[in-house]
Amino acid sequence: MKRYKRSFASDNNSIVHPRVMEVLQKVNHTHELSYGEDAYTQSARKKFKEVFGRESEVFFVFNGTGANVTGLAAMTQPHQAVVCTETAHINVDECGAVERFAGCRLLPLQTSDGKLRPEQIQPLLHVLGVQHHSQPKVVSITQSTELGTVYSLEEVKRLAAYAHSKGMLVHMDGARICNAAASLGISLKAATADTGIDVLSFGGTKNGLMFGEAVVFFNRQLADSYQYIRKQGTQLASKMRYIAVQFETLLSDQLWLENAQKANAMAAMLAEEAERIPGVRITQPVQANGVFVSMPKAAAERLMQEYFFYPWNEEQEEYRWMTSFDTEEQDVLEFAAAVREAMR
Amino acid sequence: MKRYKRSFASDNNSIVHPRVMEVLQKVNHTHELSYGEDAYTQSARKKFKEVFGRESEVFFVFNGTGANVTGLAAMTQPHQAVVCTETAHINVDECGAVERFAGCRLLPLQTSDGKLRPEQIQPLLHVLGVQHHSQPKVVSITQSTELGTVYSLEEVKRLAAYAHSKGMLVHMDGARICNAAASLGISLKAATADTGIDVLSFGGTKNGLMFGEAVVFFNRQLADSYQYIRKQGTQLASKMRYIAVQFETLLSDQLWLENAQKANAMAAMLAEEAERIPGVRITQPVQANGVFVSMPKAAAERLMQEYFFYPWNEEQEEYRWMTSFDTEEQDVLEFAAAVREAMR
Amino acid sequence: MKRYKRSFASDNNSIVHPRVMEVLQKVNHTHELSYGEDAYTQSARKKFKEVFGRESEVFFVFNGTGANVTGLAAMTQPHQAVVCTETAHINVDECGAVERFAGCRLLPLQTSDGKLRPEQIQPLLHVLGVQHHSQPKVVSITQSTELGTVYSLEEVKRLAAYAHSKGMLVHMDGARICNAAASLGISLKAATADTGIDVLSFGGTKNGLMFGEAVVFFNRQLADSYQYIRKQGTQLASKMRYIAVQFETLLSDQLWLENAQKANAMAAMLAEEAERIPGVRITQPVQANGVFVSMPKAAAERLMQEYFFYPWNEEQEEYRWMTSFDTEEQDVLEFAAAVREAMR
Amino acid sequence: MKRYKRSFASDNNSIVHPRVMEVLQKVNHTHELSYGEDAYTQSARKKFKEVFGRESEVFFVFNGTGANVTGLAAMTQPHQAVVCTETAHINVDECGAVERFAGCRLLPLQTSDGKLRPEQIQPLLHVLGVQHHSQPKVVSITQSTELGTVYSLEEVKRLAAYAHSKGMLVHMDGARICNAAASLGISLKAATADTGIDVLSFGGTKNGLMFGEAVVFFNRQLADSYQYIRKQGTQLASKMRYIAVQFETLLSDQLWLENAQKANAMAAMLAEEAERIPGVRITQPVQANGVFVSMPKAAAERLMQEYFFYPWNEEQEEYRWMTSFDTEEQDVLEFAAAVREAMR
Repeated sequence: MKRYKRSFASDNNSIVHPRVMEVLQKVNHTHELSYGEDAYTQSARKKFKEVFGRESEVFFVFNGTGANVTGLAAMTQPHQAVVCTETAHINVDECGAVERFAGCRLLPLQTSDGKLRPEQIQPLLHVLGVQHHSQPKVVSITQSTELGTVYSLEEVKRLAAYAHSKGMLVHMDGARICNAAASLGISLKAATADTGIDVLSFGGTKNGLMFGEAVVFFNRQLADSYQYIRKQGTQLASKMRYIAVQFETLLSDQLWLENAQKANAMAAMLAEEAERIPGVRITQPVQANGVFVSMPKAAAERLMQEYFFYPWNEEQEEYRWMTSFDTEEQDVLEFAAAVREAMR
Repeated sequence: MKRYKRSFASDNNSIVHPRVMEVLQKVNHTHELSYGEDAYTQSARKKFKEVFGRESEVFFVFNGTGANVTGLAAMTQPHQAVVCTETAHINVDECGAVERFAGCRLLPLQTSDGKLRPEQIQPLLHVLGVQHHSQPKVVSITQSTELGTVYSLEEVKRLAAYAHSKGMLVHMDGARICNAAASLGISLKAATADTGIDVLSFGGTKNGLMFGEAVVFFNRQLADSYQYIRKQGTQLASKMRYIAVQFETLLSDQLWLENAQKANAMAAMLAEEAERIPGVRITQPVQANGVFVSMPKAAAERLMQEYFFYPWNEEQEEYRWMTSFDTEEQDVLEFAAAVREAMR
Repeated sequence: MKRYKRSFASDNNSIVHPRVMEVLQKVNHTHELSYGEDAYTQSARKKFKEVFGRESEVFFVFNGTGANVTGLAAMTQPHQAVVCTETAHINVDECGAVERFAGCRLLPLQTSDGKLRPEQIQPLLHVLGVQHHSQPKVVSITQSTELGTVYSLEEVKRLAAYAHSKGMLVHMDGARICNAAASLGISLKAATADTGIDVLSFGGTKNGLMFGEAVVFFNRQLADSYQYIRKQGTQLASKMRYIAVQFETLLSDQLWLENAQKANAMAAMLAEEAERIPGVRITQPVQANGVFVSMPKAAAERLMQEYFFYPWNEEQEEYRWMTSFDTEEQDVLEFAAAVREAMR
Repeated sequence: MKRYKRSFASDNNSIVHPRVMEVLQKVNHTHELSYGEDAYTQSARKKFKEVFGRESEVFFVFNGTGANVTGLAAMTQPHQAVVCTETAHINVDECGAVERFAGCRLLPLQTSDGKLRPEQIQPLLHVLGVQHHSQPKVVSITQSTELGTVYSLEEVKRLAAYAHSKGMLVHMDGARICNAAASLGISLKAATADTGIDVLSFGGTKNGLMFGEAVVFFNRQLADSYQYIRKQGTQLASKMRYIAVQFETLLSDQLWLENAQKANAMAAMLAEEAERIPGVRITQPVQANGVFVSMPKAAAERLMQEYFFYPWNEEQEEYRWMTSFDTEEQDVLEFAAAVREAMR
């Protein structure tokens, strides 16, 4: 089995943050009730209310796909549709999970930068009320986007206001919401609850957890049946405390922010280094922890001998490099050197 | 929030085994590819082949419901049916997850001891070939059963042979297969692969893991599309190494057996203590790590002030007590004393 | 291909009533808008409001399974459950259609006579609010039942009141509701809307139509999204007028009643004849258009040489004979003679 | 309720062909077994084998959406995807029926003329074998297309060969396959079975039937479980004879061809008339029974006062006019005059 160098393949290649690992050990000493009835889960839920507002309601699940699928199932009926970008994780990387479980359709829209705009949604709405067509009900956005860009606060608020004005709801895939909030320099609450969105998939795994994501409802009514949806969706953990304490740690002492800032800073540094290499071009604004570049395929393939990362658009010779909280400056410098070498 | 004493509510109230916790830390030092492409996952898969036979194929998932649902989805088409017991976890404790995801029906049968027998299945088969009816395709058994009993090897083999003779497949919910194998005094392979069953949900969480179950295919053809089913079923972990190493640890140095034997021994001890208490009656053979008792409701409720456990059949004043690998003799003695006290 | 005598296999072996056939021709002369936007459909909907009450809302579909499945989908979310009898058509004769489309579970209960009672439902409700279990939401009853019996008005009202008191809804599979109303000597409205039920599958095909059933909502809120559910459920007819006019004819000049009375009378006559034959025993009260008998298997098989009908319970040598609006006295007499002959 | 003039809204606004209506009456005289066990259904199935080849297998269903959904469900597993055009009926006009019932995804591709080409499909196939993505399994084409164009025989064969070379299957939505075969001047078998496609939705309703479509399997293996899928998909008719005889009539004495030729001829005539009207532009080749035109919105709206028809693309002021077997020259002339009037 080939061993690669510390890589820029994905932020989920990262380790578990030491403080998270530590708390897992700390709570590992006696019996606790399962399925979330334990004190650790209650405490973590309280922490979420502190961070996201008292009106919010949080539920823990295993992973991002699970968070998105069950969250969207709570927001839709099967004859409805979810508007998203063509590059959205729910559209391209979940093997049809939303369609199969929620029974509804996705309506993907093309974007240049991974961001939806109200003007794009409007043309879809002429089907409202017509029985032949899936009824658009949810706008799902990803923050930060799959292209490493970040919606401004104003952009999110405008989308949310637009959606609500049309009787629609807003879902945020926040697998990297911490990176976005860090990039915007605002609190998690400001980046989510205060924008008017209804439901958030709050990502933990990519920002230092071992496993675990959270579904946060700002629109409380939508949470009414969610516990059953989570269970039917196979996302209810029995030893829940081991998710809960990870999240409590992440939300304590600004660990979420520290991790996200580090990842973002490493992406910025990598972009800066890459920009200086002739023949390498940055293709998207670097606003969070992803760097999208174009470079000659032959050079990329030389680089891939040592480093694993993903082609983003093979035809356009575009590649994706992700950083994470445990990416070190040394990693960036070595990688940049390798890129330079490969470009010769 | 009420704190209960170390309890007999469920084996999933237990901690993570220290050796498992240790290995989680040990592998937490650098980047690894995600989604199972890492060396740890490859190593764990190799270990499974050593234990379950070279022909077997293993996939890791998050939890037992996920293992059952995606495993059964790989064995059925939506117009088919799964025969199980009325007490089966898939029938009563998964909130309709199989029906929703796999689209197929369950055909639950009544049993006195949680075990299916070929004679019970036969009357269901008159619908084979008739278009109006869901077609029985899978027999799903739980080993050890939800009632704490254990199928003999002969019983499993007879069921598997019968099912295959009718063109059906056999699924084993092995959330507690380790307890069953320990009880039967045989290897995991003898308890599963060698009986002729097709697919196994191999339980880890209840036997010392933090999270993680495994779907093991002995019928390799059924595994062909399973990777997609796992992903679409929201059960693909990104940081897979943290499941894999737990399983490798469990299967190494007979940790699975040590844990299961301990849990079984504690159940036997508890049953022995309970039997001596006037008015308490053991209602099922204690063959694994569950003890089913009947006792007056008033007494049970007194006991529940301090100890959390589940009524099994309220009308019959029947209760379930589960032991786990981390149940100690002292726990049993204290609990037995509390039972005796409550019965006064 | 074997030709059988005019038979007692099912009321769907019957022809289309001549008045229905006549109207189909009558409306077949020019273009009409499709999907229900035509004047004939509007007129038929108005007729339904006259018959079932101004508060009701009707939608036409193709067949009984379609009516049940889409109607129940409008009443449930996938994590909920539908309580019904073990003999219910939705449970045994629809190949898992409800589970696959609505995603929810059925909770079938044993009955001796095909009728549910509140006392049977109550024990299922201890799972309400518990996340592990499908939440009982709908009580589905069949009127007249699959066993040829008829709920009294009081029985239906009691069930509906009970269900509503528990926050549940009531669905009536009225594939033979006309036979039931005729048997009870009451109007269709009295038999349905006035009992408190929420949604009715109103059967047409078994009572003289060529094809077509109607879903009637008495609980109007449930109808809000139904047009989309019908379409997504493949039950929206393009040339809708050809269903609508059949129903308008059925509801005009009491044709529904005339047909149902005829079928019921023929069943009563058949039962009377059969009772006089030594060795033949009537096993269920004959209250609508079905006659359930036990007779020796050998005799039944002799009879089946000439007449096609279904064994109901092979072990108990029980058989089902159905009459329809086009069963004639002569048919009954000839069949009774054949039974007598077969019993020799 | 507004009454429109005989219109060009859709071919499903048409009547039932008199010969079809006649046969419905003719078979309406005595009992027949239900669910397809009757002699009429057997005879119609035989007729299909004569027309489509002995290796084909036909099943009758209620409508086009039902045919498409159940046919595609027989060709896919839920983790797979169906490639189609953006304008495909399954993509825009079935309210998500395929996704909900089959559980799989659609992958819609943009076309200028409603026709898929192998070159468009190829880029989708880089996901084959990658667990994160729905696996393309079926190419679904519509013949004639939703844009009134007709694939040449060569185009269909090339698509089928390409799909098969990639391990994929081909589905044809033949709601208007008769119009296509008439346009191509070839037999139904040449237009379908002989091209290599696997499954056909054979349309009846738009070409003179009252209701009923047929699913024809050329790839027999795919038919193995279809009877259950049809039932579970709510598409099994009880009084099947009334679908069967309609189809037998349509396939007898070339009625299918006569009807299709008439509809096509009326479209050609309408196109010719329209082309002569200043300001009206034909936007698609008129190869079957649809005419797509652009004209000023204001004119279209004046026309719609009297005639009901659908805007196709409101932004581009594009409209769709459909003809049917019962469109008369007089209808065309009157409509053309009205168009001319509206354009003033």
